[in-house]
Amino acid sequence: MSKASKILCPVERAAKIVGNRWTALIMRDLLLNPSRRYQDLQTSLAGIPPNTLSARLQMLEENGIVERRLYQAHPPRAEYVLTDKGRELGPVIRAMRDWGRKHA
Amino acid sequence: MSKASKILCPVERAAKIVGNRWTALIMRDLLLNPSRRYQDLQTSLAGIPPNTLSARLQMLEENGIVERRLYQAHPPRAEYVLTDKGRELGPVIRAMRDWGRKHA
Repeated sequence: MSKASKILCPVERAAKIVGNRWTALIMRDLLLNPSRRYQDLQTSLAGIPPNTLSARLQMLEENGIVERRLYQAHPPRAEYVLTDKGRELGPVIRAMRDWGRKHA
Repeated sequence: MSKASKILCPVERAAKIVGNRWTALIMRDLLLNPSRRYQDLQTSLAGIPPNTLSARLQMLEENGIVERRLYQAHPPRAEYVLTDKGRELGPVIRAMRDWGRKHA
């Protein structure tokens, strides 16, 4: 692996999370709200297929970006919150937004 | 489209550019160097298939991120430089790198 590639690995790690359309939308929603129920996310991410939302949330959970918390036991209901690691992606999402706004 | 989706569109525009592994690598290489020949990029992005490099450079050119300049007429040889719009993705790439380094 070249020097440039090695240096970029950290960038790739972030790209894996923020580079996907739906993942970026989920991240933004969770950055704007202290916690979100599955149903909240489905409403605000209009058009996301339920399987996709579940798969993306699971990926984010496995990568330590999102934490799943049960807020009701019967029937079980979960809400999603960003971990510290997830919240620290805020500057990335904001830099992307600023650039995207400037170059609409 | 929900309010959250509308607000995110700028983020999606940036995700299109920086969300792809090879595109992010090309961007980083061009941010580190004033100009790069095709051959330079192929060397530093060890492992990139030539067709992929050409396709990514063309996409970046079509999106106004990269400019292709002929530096030799016979035989024709081109070099690639970032446009202002491309250089302004620097803060995004750096924020991604900082996050990736912290969460290795």
